[in-house]
Amino acid sequence: MTEKARVRTGGRSARIQASVHAAVETLLAELSRSELTIPLIADRAGVTPSTIYRRWGDLAELLGDVAVQRLRPVSDPADTGSVPGDLEAWSIQFADEMSSVPGRTMLRDIFAGTTDSKNPSYCCSFTDLQLGVINRRAIDRGKPGFDVELFIDRVVAPILYRILFRELPPSTDYCRQLVSAAVPGHAEPVHAVTDA
Amino acid sequence: MTEKARVRTGGRSARIQASVHAAVETLLAELSRSELTIPLIADRAGVTPSTIYRRWGDLAELLGDVAVQRLRPVSDPADTGSVPGDLEAWSIQFADEMSSVPGRTMLRDIFAGTTDSKNPSYCCSFTDLQLGVINRRAIDRGKPGFDVELFIDRVVAPILYRILFRELPPSTDYCRQLVSAAVPGHAEPVHAVTDA
Repeated sequence: MTEKARVRTGGRSARIQASVHAAVETLLAELSRSELTIPLIADRAGVTPSTIYRRWGDLAELLGDVAVQRLRPVSDPADTGSVPGDLEAWSIQFADEMSSVPGRTMLRDIFAGTTDSKNPSYCCSFTDLQLGVINRRAIDRGKPGFDVELFIDRVVAPILYRILFRELPPSTDYCRQLVSAAVPGHAEPVHAVTDA
Repeated sequence: MTEKARVRTGGRSARIQASVHAAVETLLAELSRSELTIPLIADRAGVTPSTIYRRWGDLAELLGDVAVQRLRPVSDPADTGSVPGDLEAWSIQFADEMSSVPGRTMLRDIFAGTTDSKNPSYCCSFTDLQLGVINRRAIDRGKPGFDVELFIDRVVAPILYRILFRELPPSTDYCRQLVSAAVPGHAEPVHAVTDA
């Protein structure tokens, strides 16, 4: 369902998506999640319930789609002047945002759809894109890049494991240790790394 | 809710839990997940809906509790005669089970409860226990153990990241590579390691 929703991005279809997403966001501010229903959302968005069922399938898939849109990064990762610095800053911010109550609610919504929902992989592709920006930034400056896949295995995955499965969220020190073990040259003081 | 359910394990309370869990399992074999309701489960289990609401709070929390019980390991990890061999066998089986359709459905159910649900941490504690068995088995034999926390960061977390966020499930080769990079001495051929 979401795949379809993402392909048809223009005109009437885009307006329906925007209006349904806005209705969900407004209603979530007024009601508890268990009170939310598709007829209620349709009424607020000014569409018929069948429009929502046709496009999203069910409430879980719609909430997952809204969460994906909220997780879409609004800007490039902070530019600290070095790859280790960028990766450390990105990881700490990622851990912080994803372990917040809104972050954990978005993760829950992303997993609440069907087991073949595309929502988790959209979420993961945002991470790939952000890390890709840091990598290209380094290469464009003639600095060594880093192994994005290895970084995901060694830093992103354990941060999310702690958030999803453990009661203790990942601390800033924990993030720093993961980055430092995963990225060569991270032991150098970040501030001393100058940009050519 | 689940915390409470797990504490009261004896007598009437245990019988109610067993009967409600059995009702969920039977109904899931007959109906689609979206057709499942608490009144239907209560009727099948021979309890009142309010018994279920009082004990589990809502349907998502009940389904998560059923998933946790299914994820509880039924036996100790396979004993291959060496720590690297045990960890490789455990990881491959873990990846295989969790990436199956029933595995991914259980993961979804575990995350579908409230954001402060204990279900994900029960799931994670089963992993800790299984890895602890492998570690103690080695130490009891006078062999070196391994760092369970590091193994979770380096092997368990990336396996689950692939299952949860990526469309490509973790392959056996991928699991072997993770274990081999995480566990010292894994480069030795597993079959050559004899047990004292």
